[in-house]
Amino acid sequence: MNNIYAVKGNIIFTPSFGKYNIFKNSYIIIEDKYVKGIYEKLPTIYKDILVKDYGTSLIIPGFVDLHLHAPQFANLGLGLDKELMPWLETYTFPEEKKYSDLAYAKRVYSYLIKELWKLGTTRSVIFATLHKEASKMLMDMFNQSGLSAYVGKVNMDRNSPDFLVETTEQSLKDTEEILIEYSDKYDLVKPIITPRFVPTCTTKLMNGLGKLAVKYNAKVQSHLCENKDEISFVKQLHPNSKNYARVYDEAGLLGQLPTCMAHCVLLDQDEIDLMAKRQVFAVHCPNSNSNLSSGMAPIRGLIDRGIPVGLGSDISGGHSLSMLNTIVSAAQVSNLNYAIKRRSEKSLTTSELFYLATKGGGKFFGKVGSFEKDYEFDALVIDDSTLPIVKPLSLEERLQKFIYTGDDRNIKVRYVAGNEVLEPVF
Amino acid sequence: MNNIYAVKGNIIFTPSFGKYNIFKNSYIIIEDKYVKGIYEKLPTIYKDILVKDYGTSLIIPGFVDLHLHAPQFANLGLGLDKELMPWLETYTFPEEKKYSDLAYAKRVYSYLIKELWKLGTTRSVIFATLHKEASKMLMDMFNQSGLSAYVGKVNMDRNSPDFLVETTEQSLKDTEEILIEYSDKYDLVKPIITPRFVPTCTTKLMNGLGKLAVKYNAKVQSHLCENKDEISFVKQLHPNSKNYARVYDEAGLLGQLPTCMAHCVLLDQDEIDLMAKRQVFAVHCPNSNSNLSSGMAPIRGLIDRGIPVGLGSDISGGHSLSMLNTIVSAAQVSNLNYAIKRRSEKSLTTSELFYLATKGGGKFFGKVGSFEKDYEFDALVIDDSTLPIVKPLSLEERLQKFIYTGDDRNIKVRYVAGNEVLEPVF
Repeated sequence: MNNIYAVKGNIIFTPSFGKYNIFKNSYIIIEDKYVKGIYEKLPTIYKDILVKDYGTSLIIPGFVDLHLHAPQFANLGLGLDKELMPWLETYTFPEEKKYSDLAYAKRVYSYLIKELWKLGTTRSVIFATLHKEASKMLMDMFNQSGLSAYVGKVNMDRNSPDFLVETTEQSLKDTEEILIEYSDKYDLVKPIITPRFVPTCTTKLMNGLGKLAVKYNAKVQSHLCENKDEISFVKQLHPNSKNYARVYDEAGLLGQLPTCMAHCVLLDQDEIDLMAKRQVFAVHCPNSNSNLSSGMAPIRGLIDRGIPVGLGSDISGGHSLSMLNTIVSAAQVSNLNYAIKRRSEKSLTTSELFYLATKGGGKFFGKVGSFEKDYEFDALVIDDSTLPIVKPLSLEERLQKFIYTGDDRNIKVRYVAGNEVLEPVF
Repeated sequence: MNNIYAVKGNIIFTPSFGKYNIFKNSYIIIEDKYVKGIYEKLPTIYKDILVKDYGTSLIIPGFVDLHLHAPQFANLGLGLDKELMPWLETYTFPEEKKYSDLAYAKRVYSYLIKELWKLGTTRSVIFATLHKEASKMLMDMFNQSGLSAYVGKVNMDRNSPDFLVETTEQSLKDTEEILIEYSDKYDLVKPIITPRFVPTCTTKLMNGLGKLAVKYNAKVQSHLCENKDEISFVKQLHPNSKNYARVYDEAGLLGQLPTCMAHCVLLDQDEIDLMAKRQVFAVHCPNSNSNLSSGMAPIRGLIDRGIPVGLGSDISGGHSLSMLNTIVSAAQVSNLNYAIKRRSEKSLTTSELFYLATKGGGKFFGKVGSFEKDYEFDALVIDDSTLPIVKPLSLEERLQKFIYTGDDRNIKVRYVAGNEVLEPVF
């Protein structure tokens, strides 16, 4: 039983939206990369296996970040005084240009992956830049780190600055090269098809990407209905499409293969119905939507309609890579949404948001984000003994206190797909 | 020149709303507790004074927190799933009851003051509990720490649970005892008159407190127009008063002496005009207003009307004592307010919010929160070398990056009124 071990501690996770499962002082049995079961006492059959005893620490699933822009790490916390379109022009595009330089890319991506590790984000879905080589390097670096990611070389062939644009042909060729080379190269790191968003992609490019998705059975990510002016621009570019989502749909990029759409702040009813039908993931990025004055996404409404939802840091529209910070921001946005919209849409609770940050986003990766049987074992060991806790707390309260007042200093150990992952060195 | 010294570093502060003054690699001269001037080269007259050289670090004013509840520190990050009135009943009042026990109070207050120190909050305006002895102890502890604070014994003689209520007479008697004993006891720590809020204070109590304010020349703090249901309750209790603010005003508790009013989310025009006339401070508590679904305070409107404004953490309605976190939350709330209200009220910029967190709130203490001549020297030394900075940044960008992505680990040294303050030990 060499490939079997147990971790012991105070286990808490959300097998369904808003519902905690709690096992005090119990054992999770892991075989290969999978959870086999949770036991209060170690069954006799496992009496000889290695037990990693984390004492009174909390053991929770690793965090899943369904949307972030790797090159924008360099801009983290800067330039948050504009709305989406001028923000892209002023801050984002000039920074992304630099990723033709592999040395620069390596320096920033090293920082990024270390930060993700530090913050307990075990799985991410990532926009790189349009640069093929830097995108490949980012996949290699993720694989080396032991963290899991979908990494997308970005496609953009119109309405982009001269210094950051591709021809349609080159864009498709580079994308296909990556799909050929990387689709089966790594277990935990995969390429993903990544049209930046409708404004920067011609119909020809989007149609080509839709075909590549089918040909290579590749997942898809993009942005959808983030900002008022962006949506107007899309309407102007595609007057014959019913709405923004339909433009992707017509190109085979809306859930024909598993798809993540960031933001979904301002969807219309047809778009909501279509996303539900196609089971397209809506990625809620509350920090970004607040920082860039985009608005408040109606997340409970999307969930009630049956749309799968996860959370995204969306750096550097979001200013923090931390999923703790993202959970708190999502709670605040949903509370304000409740207050402003005359209390018609109930706020999201901590346990509901914890679900979105683990199993909700984890579903995009498969059986990830929970400690149910046969889930891949991604976990964080949380030592909250340094938080100023002055009275006895339940495990649920300890988790809430960690989410609202803790930080990376409380994360002591990280597991991804059954393996303990140490701090990356590049 | 024993009582004269200089600090050297990259100096940045906001002498007026939204305007940075920046001095690269310069000297601030401090005499006794006051700033005497800022120089790029040390004037000959000062050639023999002690220079504390902080190298490339940023030197910024200390943070001012104009509203927090000391006893609620124990609840930090817990129970943020209710609105104001049920939240008070369920979480807050039961916790505050415990402060009849001085040993418990000392334990929590020790944590609190250490956290304030850690987070660079050099000045605070504080609600204690209704307990006289614990409130006195909190003042003694602040004085011992070297941090500055106004501390209010809370008054509440109606609509409160049996276990947390006073008689009108006892409430006034205890308040007066504290004013007599503490008004001149310490330089940096003072008592403040603190009717909890209209719902828990009879007219007789408020009138008595108004008289005490005049008799002892004491400042005043309370809550105003935080939540819809709270305002309805006040209307029901005081049908003959024009609005919530007028109830305080009629008791002499609205700016007759310098006054801070927390929240001001839902003021009517008469209240705004009255606050401007009386120069009552509006304390913006964005984390709390979001966590408790109160709403978005129209801060720029209040500032444009000439009302003095500062920021408050409002723990534990707010989940974070950090003024960095509070600035970011205020930015996000103002952005969402801009998005929702059809872009009619411009968002608050980082430099405007930095002003509110330093000089804006500092005005309540006198000449505090700036490095202008004759200001009390409250300062933080910020070492941002451990932040992942991957490209050259201006001093303004470094400050913005610290605000959005830094934390207490970047704060290396704290000064209050000219003295370096070390970590408190109790």
